[in-house]
Amino acid sequence: MDLKTIITPTLLLDKNRAIANIDRMISSCNKQGKILRPHFKTHQSLEVGRWFRSSGITRITVSSVNMAEYFAADGWEDILIAFPYNPREINRLNDLASKINLTIIVPSVESAILLSGIQTTGINVMIKIDTGYGRSGTPWDDNTSLLKILNILNTNNSLKVTGLLSHSGHTYKTNASDQVKHIYSETVDRMNECRNKLGKNDLIISVGDTPSASIVDNYLNVNELRPGNFVFYDLMQHYIGSCKLDNISVAMACPVVDIQNNRRKAVLYGGGVHLSKESVKNNGLPVYGMAVSLNKDGWLPFDIDFYVTSLSQEHGIIESEHALPPEFKIGELIGIIPVHSCLTANLAGSYTLLSGENVDHMNKRRI
Amino acid sequence: MDLKTIITPTLLLDKNRAIANIDRMISSCNKQGKILRPHFKTHQSLEVGRWFRSSGITRITVSSVNMAEYFAADGWEDILIAFPYNPREINRLNDLASKINLTIIVPSVESAILLSGIQTTGINVMIKIDTGYGRSGTPWDDNTSLLKILNILNTNNSLKVTGLLSHSGHTYKTNASDQVKHIYSETVDRMNECRNKLGKNDLIISVGDTPSASIVDNYLNVNELRPGNFVFYDLMQHYIGSCKLDNISVAMACPVVDIQNNRRKAVLYGGGVHLSKESVKNNGLPVYGMAVSLNKDGWLPFDIDFYVTSLSQEHGIIESEHALPPEFKIGELIGIIPVHSCLTANLAGSYTLLSGENVDHMNKRRI
Repeated sequence: MDLKTIITPTLLLDKNRAIANIDRMISSCNKQGKILRPHFKTHQSLEVGRWFRSSGITRITVSSVNMAEYFAADGWEDILIAFPYNPREINRLNDLASKINLTIIVPSVESAILLSGIQTTGINVMIKIDTGYGRSGTPWDDNTSLLKILNILNTNNSLKVTGLLSHSGHTYKTNASDQVKHIYSETVDRMNECRNKLGKNDLIISVGDTPSASIVDNYLNVNELRPGNFVFYDLMQHYIGSCKLDNISVAMACPVVDIQNNRRKAVLYGGGVHLSKESVKNNGLPVYGMAVSLNKDGWLPFDIDFYVTSLSQEHGIIESEHALPPEFKIGELIGIIPVHSCLTANLAGSYTLLSGENVDHMNKRRI
Repeated sequence: MDLKTIITPTLLLDKNRAIANIDRMISSCNKQGKILRPHFKTHQSLEVGRWFRSSGITRITVSSVNMAEYFAADGWEDILIAFPYNPREINRLNDLASKINLTIIVPSVESAILLSGIQTTGINVMIKIDTGYGRSGTPWDDNTSLLKILNILNTNNSLKVTGLLSHSGHTYKTNASDQVKHIYSETVDRMNECRNKLGKNDLIISVGDTPSASIVDNYLNVNELRPGNFVFYDLMQHYIGSCKLDNISVAMACPVVDIQNNRRKAVLYGGGVHLSKESVKNNGLPVYGMAVSLNKDGWLPFDIDFYVTSLSQEHGIIESEHALPPEFKIGELIGIIPVHSCLTANLAGSYTLLSGENVDHMNKRRI
């Protein structure tokens, strides 16, 4: 692409890498006979969604009703909203369920009671199981509550309980493949123990997070995986071990606006409103992105790693003990690999392909 | 307002509090004969901008060319872009400068050289001085470089150097009024020393950050202040001591979607894409917002403080050693005072007044 056309922070998307990431994950799931229901909250893009569709994906996961509506309007007919049922959105849910095959989740007895009291247009429900992450859901070993949830939901004929769902978000806090593998097998064991105790073998088991789906060789006894981040990956995933640096398919092109301290410090146009304030630790200190050298065909790492070491609303600061290479020059562009691509994409509100073409993000038309 | 109409995370804005904050700051500046050039990056709203205009403000600060264009289109005729000159945006800057009284900043000799080589439509320039924050600008005591910048800019007749500008962002990292006062007086001393050494008494001195402008009694020898955050304030400012809790004029209304662990934990619809990942330390641990009780007239603190203790993309978790009060109930709303209102507003992309009326944010129409 013509880098001269970029004048403000712009999120670049390498389509070839993204499609390779999609195809690799599909192949992993296909080989083991697992359903891949990718999470679209990472990209929130109709165009990127179509790349998945071209590769054979028909079932998707989203994290809000708004997002479900966005993708339903583009022809997606089997959507799971992997976020606890929000009673305030029942009208929108009913409207959506009258058009597509919709699945929502309930995390607890109280949530099940509220949902069961409502006549729906026919909604599938999965029960959210907490297998150890501790964010939300009923503990996998709380058989009493789980049976109660099942019974409560079964009193309502317009609801159909289809499965048990968990999200092992604690894999994001690891930095070693072994830890990810351990969490994954523990998750699967607990989900199976949970289903066995309920005695409902027709319920599917749905798990999934990008570290597990990327690192684990054997998906064991589950039916469905729901990773999302893998389409882009990012610095955090690279640190966890989910991907190589050259699998990452997004980078924020940032204009350099100042160079200081004998070339050891650069000020970039690219701050918290572009990259997000998400950080990872590098040598014990938080960093907000890693610099790459941009060219018309994409980007390449520098010989030495340079990191965004602090961020304010619009400024990104790169400070290093090494002198910055000549590419760091006022008026030039530096690429920044984001720490957490989902949040960066959400802030960017659109993508620019390496061909120069623009690609949608839901945030641009958020109501 | 009718809380029933809120179905997803919604940023509430208490107009009375915001206007009281505006008027208090104007009064502080007027009393001491200082120009108030408020930073509009906090609210990025034409409507909120008009509240400032109604109170007599005519000069404003923004942090991007995009933002300058947004406000210029609403009749603002004196705009300072307090962000280092980005050579890639020269055409947009020239276009803007042909319509309004535009001021931009240069942080260094290199930046000055690039700007001076360009014919402009008449642009004011301020020199960015680093008085100790260390983010960007030429050090206040580097007289050689500062003289060089002045001379370089003066070779270009289409540029007019109008002043020296600093931003003491290190006040954001304090938690005591005394530290803020110390930084402020040091900043002013250094700016004056800098101007004296340059021997250019016609250059104005512009400083400003919300902690200093809120806490300091005597603004000392400066011409202009540029605080921005004070229109809303937030938890971070409250911790620094810039405001009381009941000066904060924004709160995110978040639906409760689950309650767990014998009422010690709540799951809210309201995550990193709503609040931002900015945190402050509370008892040594990061928190992402503070809960308040909502009612039709606004919000009130709970008897005990409850904090958002973790955030994922759409989920906010409140976990406490105390049982949560009865307002925490699935289907109800809880207000969250954001840690950093600028970032939260930027993510929200609009405001809802307590009257129920909607107010614009630039992000909604970002191109």
